[in-house]
Amino acid sequence: MNTDAALVRLRLDLAYDGSGFSGWAAQPGRRTVQGVVEEALGRVLRLPAAARLTVAGRTDAGVHARGQVAHADVPAGAWHAAVDSAGRALAGVLPGDVRLRGLAPAPDGFDARFSPLWRRYSYRVCDDLATADPLRRNETLWYPRRISLDRMNSAAAALVGEHDFAAFCRRREGATTVRRVLRLDWARDDDGVAVAAVVADAFCHNMVRALVGALLVVGEGRREQSWPGRVLAAAIRDSAVRVVPPHGLCLAEVRYPPPAELAARAAETRRVRSAPLA
Amino acid sequence: MNTDAALVRLRLDLAYDGSGFSGWAAQPGRRTVQGVVEEALGRVLRLPAAARLTVAGRTDAGVHARGQVAHADVPAGAWHAAVDSAGRALAGVLPGDVRLRGLAPAPDGFDARFSPLWRRYSYRVCDDLATADPLRRNETLWYPRRISLDRMNSAAAALVGEHDFAAFCRRREGATTVRRVLRLDWARDDDGVAVAAVVADAFCHNMVRALVGALLVVGEGRREQSWPGRVLAAAIRDSAVRVVPPHGLCLAEVRYPPPAELAARAAETRRVRSAPLA
Repeated sequence: MNTDAALVRLRLDLAYDGSGFSGWAAQPGRRTVQGVVEEALGRVLRLPAAARLTVAGRTDAGVHARGQVAHADVPAGAWHAAVDSAGRALAGVLPGDVRLRGLAPAPDGFDARFSPLWRRYSYRVCDDLATADPLRRNETLWYPRRISLDRMNSAAAALVGEHDFAAFCRRREGATTVRRVLRLDWARDDDGVAVAAVVADAFCHNMVRALVGALLVVGEGRREQSWPGRVLAAAIRDSAVRVVPPHGLCLAEVRYPPPAELAARAAETRRVRSAPLA
Repeated sequence: MNTDAALVRLRLDLAYDGSGFSGWAAQPGRRTVQGVVEEALGRVLRLPAAARLTVAGRTDAGVHARGQVAHADVPAGAWHAAVDSAGRALAGVLPGDVRLRGLAPAPDGFDARFSPLWRRYSYRVCDDLATADPLRRNETLWYPRRISLDRMNSAAAALVGEHDFAAFCRRREGATTVRRVLRLDWARDDDGVAVAAVVADAFCHNMVRALVGALLVVGEGRREQSWPGRVLAAAIRDSAVRVVPPHGLCLAEVRYPPPAELAARAAETRRVRSAPLA
């Protein structure tokens, strides 16, 4: 038996300020979250090559995370040699704009990308520039017109549920754009900032930013409350839907099922996600 | 009568991220908040020279503000020519790390520096690095040891009231170090960050950062709860008091009396502040 070949799957919980990154996904010559964390993990575990990470949400350039989850399969020997100090060492090696919130072996069947029950994103909009907070400008869209949350919440109700979100997605060859939105609503925080909470089993590319863009024009009264629902029903990419900037967006939480259901959930997700377009 | 000579005193309410500034006070060759705002105000009002600002709190390099107040005396003609658009124009000219929250003629007797009843500062400390928020790292001290707010609040009680704060101040020739601390307490916010609220009629240089430094060592159990009070009573600068870094500090609010009391308050403050050291 070759014990060198035994792998242990690690779960990493991460938070990052996306401002200084070209997104999550590693790209040659660019500073990416994946690249930085893979390099740091390889260094701390003294791996011969960087550990490869699989992630719950491939955030775009400028998008933040407070609840990102990733996994890496690393040689069991390397993990056991470092287990007592690995978390502290990795936190120490990472730059200030990426923080490690957890590092531990994952339960059997865990897959950061395919096991989630849902992902939750938040999007922050300040619509009263006289109260704009310069300290949070990198995570808040400054919007020059006042928005009505009542109007936006009313419009959002038509988007909740399982639908083909092709109208709000950048289409990818051979992948379904059917998603189940579990929650989509707006509330003001203590500072008066409008914060959207968007929960879905998964998201296609640009989906949250397109949904927010469609709701903002309703909020300021330029479109009727029924408009986002009609765009959805048309099920084709609508150029009238503006994709809002990335810096207001944050991956807030990824929820996984109990350990006993992880493998079944991953298998089901793979089956659904690869379904051909109708 | 020379109307060109008539001046109007403007009150400016400002918020800024201090990270990119060498503090408030203008210095040749440095990017300062005062320098940036004076230049912008001169441009918007088309003044022949930059307007000179007088400020409530001369924040140090790296210190933030959400409730800074300043005044400028500008030619009445220039103000009246620009009055309808000045606020919007100034907000547009200022960089993203300085935001204008108000611009209006000040009531008679108003003096941004000498009229305040009190100033309130906040100081943010994250003492659980596994929850550290990378998006707010520029306004939060990451402290490697857990702190007890009960211990800190107990110690802080001895510092409230009118005292000679020489032990917590950098001494300045010919200026009193007597201050009246109206409030000094700690609470955790929704994210578990420990936030100090410090209110005083005025502060001497480094005073909040020295008070916080003295309380943190009590919070982590390295000093007794009675220690900050004993340091205060000694009334000499104590090298055991560590001045904490500037980036956790924020000028949160400046409170002025009702208009009818502004001039009297300013006169009283000037009298007290210039009192010779006992």
